Amino acid sequence: MEATHTTFDLMAMGREARAAARHLARATTDQKNAALCAIADAIDAHAAEILAANAADMDDARAAGLSPAMLDRLNLAGRLAGIARDVRAVAVLPDPVGEHFDEATLPNGLRIAKRRTPLGVVGVIYEARPNVTVDVAALTLKTGNAAILRGGKETIRSNTALIAAIHEALRACGLPTESVAFIASPDREYVTQLLKLDKFVDVIIPRGGNSLHEFCRQNSTIPVITGGIGICHLYVDEQVDLNRAVEVIFNAKTQRPTVCNALDTVLVHEKIARALLPKLVARLAPVGVTFRLDPGASGLLGTDNVTLFPAGPNDWDTEWLSLVLGVRVVAGLESALEHIHTHSTAHSDGILTEIPAHAERFLNEVDSAVVYVNASTRFTDGGEMGLGAEIAVSTQKLHARGPMGLRELTTYKYIVRGDYQVRG
Amino acid sequence: MEATHTTFDLMAMGREARAAARHLARATTDQKNAALCAIADAIDAHAAEILAANAADMDDARAAGLSPAMLDRLNLAGRLAGIARDVRAVAVLPDPVGEHFDEATLPNGLRIAKRRTPLGVVGVIYEARPNVTVDVAALTLKTGNAAILRGGKETIRSNTALIAAIHEALRACGLPTESVAFIASPDREYVTQLLKLDKFVDVIIPRGGNSLHEFCRQNSTIPVITGGIGICHLYVDEQVDLNRAVEVIFNAKTQRPTVCNALDTVLVHEKIARALLPKLVARLAPVGVTFRLDPGASGLLGTDNVTLFPAGPNDWDTEWLSLVLGVRVVAGLESALEHIHTHSTAHSDGILTEIPAHAERFLNEVDSAVVYVNASTRFTDGGEMGLGAEIAVSTQKLHARGPMGLRELTTYKYIVRGDYQVRG
Repeated sequence: MEATHTTFDLMAMGREARAAARHLARATTDQKNAALCAIADAIDAHAAEILAANAADMDDARAAGLSPAMLDRLNLAGRLAGIARDVRAVAVLPDPVGEHFDEATLPNGLRIAKRRTPLGVVGVIYEARPNVTVDVAALTLKTGNAAILRGGKETIRSNTALIAAIHEALRACGLPTESVAFIASPDREYVTQLLKLDKFVDVIIPRGGNSLHEFCRQNSTIPVITGGIGICHLYVDEQVDLNRAVEVIFNAKTQRPTVCNALDTVLVHEKIARALLPKLVARLAPVGVTFRLDPGASGLLGTDNVTLFPAGPNDWDTEWLSLVLGVRVVAGLESALEHIHTHSTAHSDGILTEIPAHAERFLNEVDSAVVYVNASTRFTDGGEMGLGAEIAVSTQKLHARGPMGLRELTTYKYIVRGDYQVRG
Repeated sequence: MEATHTTFDLMAMGREARAAARHLARATTDQKNAALCAIADAIDAHAAEILAANAADMDDARAAGLSPAMLDRLNLAGRLAGIARDVRAVAVLPDPVGEHFDEATLPNGLRIAKRRTPLGVVGVIYEARPNVTVDVAALTLKTGNAAILRGGKETIRSNTALIAAIHEALRACGLPTESVAFIASPDREYVTQLLKLDKFVDVIIPRGGNSLHEFCRQNSTIPVITGGIGICHLYVDEQVDLNRAVEVIFNAKTQRPTVCNALDTVLVHEKIARALLPKLVARLAPVGVTFRLDPGASGLLGTDNVTLFPAGPNDWDTEWLSLVLGVRVVAGLESALEHIHTHSTAHSDGILTEIPAHAERFLNEVDSAVVYVNASTRFTDGGEMGLGAEIAVSTQKLHARGPMGLRELTTYKYIVRGDYQVRG
């Protein structure tokens, strides 16, 4: 199976996606759910072709020397049934489109309400993760949006096969295949073109590393939802349940170290550093965690250069995505807030404390998408937080912050019903 | 009074605004309201200097040959007390910051909520309207945001005098003057620099014409709230109260023709065109309205080239901002929807009908910020719609649509309270 398209007319693709979005906006919840189930069925039915395409992508990726982590993300073997199951799970979530809120009758008798509507056309730019193709298709369809997808060049065959299944399902359900458009070309020029398609695309959601987000911000004439970069902190206050605090840190650092909500830096109140730090190292080092220590922490722990290293100048600004943990001893809450203000990417930050006033001050003053008291940062996740699914984690301020689920893929319009009122 | 600043370090201004925003985010509602009242008092107290500065701006503007409409917007004479009163009116509006919503307790015991918080730093780029300086300062302060303002070059002296009064009030209330930063330079280079200040500025709100919005979209690395451009439609359906429909059209076109929610195009069902159009011309022509007619309308009305003109090819895509009204006869609702889909800027569009099913279809299928049944488009306004005030009217999809009031100047963060929960 080869990617046969080599050139794309993105203006035409945008125009068709816009027309498809208009169609989808009128689709009923039942129609959309039927399409989702049909997509799941088509993925199951075409598993052999999809996996063959993916195997060819994997061969090339191995030959190109991709890292084991990237190969793992690219690989669909053993995962396809789960991906189809996730699509069926989206089908059973409530449909936010059409909900009315902020209803009021004005003194002049006008009846006013906001009605949730699809955003329109969502552009998603991602890397070598073919499961994102299906995730995004499911979440955008469910919310009546069209999508234009641009996946990593290493996954073009896998994505092409998945899109073929998705399009087959859309056709069978009478929905336009342009609802899920796919730029099946490795040419990066198309990313730049997509970012300028403001006439047809309502929002750009990049899913990938910092450089992708920065590229989108710099080059897009369409609003970009920035997110997914987390330098996450836990501050351990002077009064805390030491053993449970260690378990929360252990979980936040090690439960899945490669993701954006994994812990990067622990800030420890100087009064409990002597009691906490040895316990922390004893719990985390055996599973492979290495530590980057500020002078306050290395003064207590030493630096053995096997698991304990002095922190370098950029370490507080590094998202580790691995079993590395920065540790800094601070004079108290004020210093912890200042460190977080300076170094956090405003994704997920928390305090571990038994002092309610400190918890409240932390909640008030830390301006991150998700702020925690006495919990692991790993809960920043649409599934964990009750959204059912997520398309991205936003760390910018407009429209949505934190996990973005179905509702965050909608906007609203004002509906005003009158009796020929005029303005005085 | 001269504008004394000639060069600005926008990076420093951004950094200081960010620090001020952090301060404002912690300010209580009482502190913010006291600052607003102090600003109103300072404007009253310094009225003489402000009006002298404005008179100097007006002299230059007259010498430069600005249009009467622009001179009118620039002029503060007789309006300053009203501007101060509007600031006091913002002080008595409810403060959205700190509100909790979407509260839930998850199965694992985590208590989760969204808390409304300020956006942070708001950049506002506007034209020769000094009242916007005070409006924006009041609305951003009330919502705990810092603002960086860049007004039109014709109003630098007026704005400098107003900002001096605002800063005096902020100092008196113990709030940082950097909360309301002002780029007192006519150099357009600073607009470009402001649009790239993504490290410190969370949103850009342009207030002005299409070219300003387009310039911001093209050059900003910060999300831009586009809006304020309205090609607005009313569709008169086959069954309608003819006389009241004419009054609604009269109001939408003539009550204030220079604003974005004024009517631009009337679409008339062919079955009632013969009855409606003569009434419409008889009502609107005497106050100076001229008409641009499609062949269907001119077939019924003729074209006298005094008030009745044939429509030109770009007329359906023109925001008139004056006493011009496009009139097109359509075959029915379907054709009206298609016209609106093609030509609307998605600001404010309405249907006048006695047929409920047509009203519902119009509400469903017209994707504009505000969609009306049997009312004038002139109601698209924060004050009219119960928001108390507005900073802009958004015609884009992200974050906010339609009139943006205080709530739309906020975002939210997730607050999660736990008992040392970890993710399994």
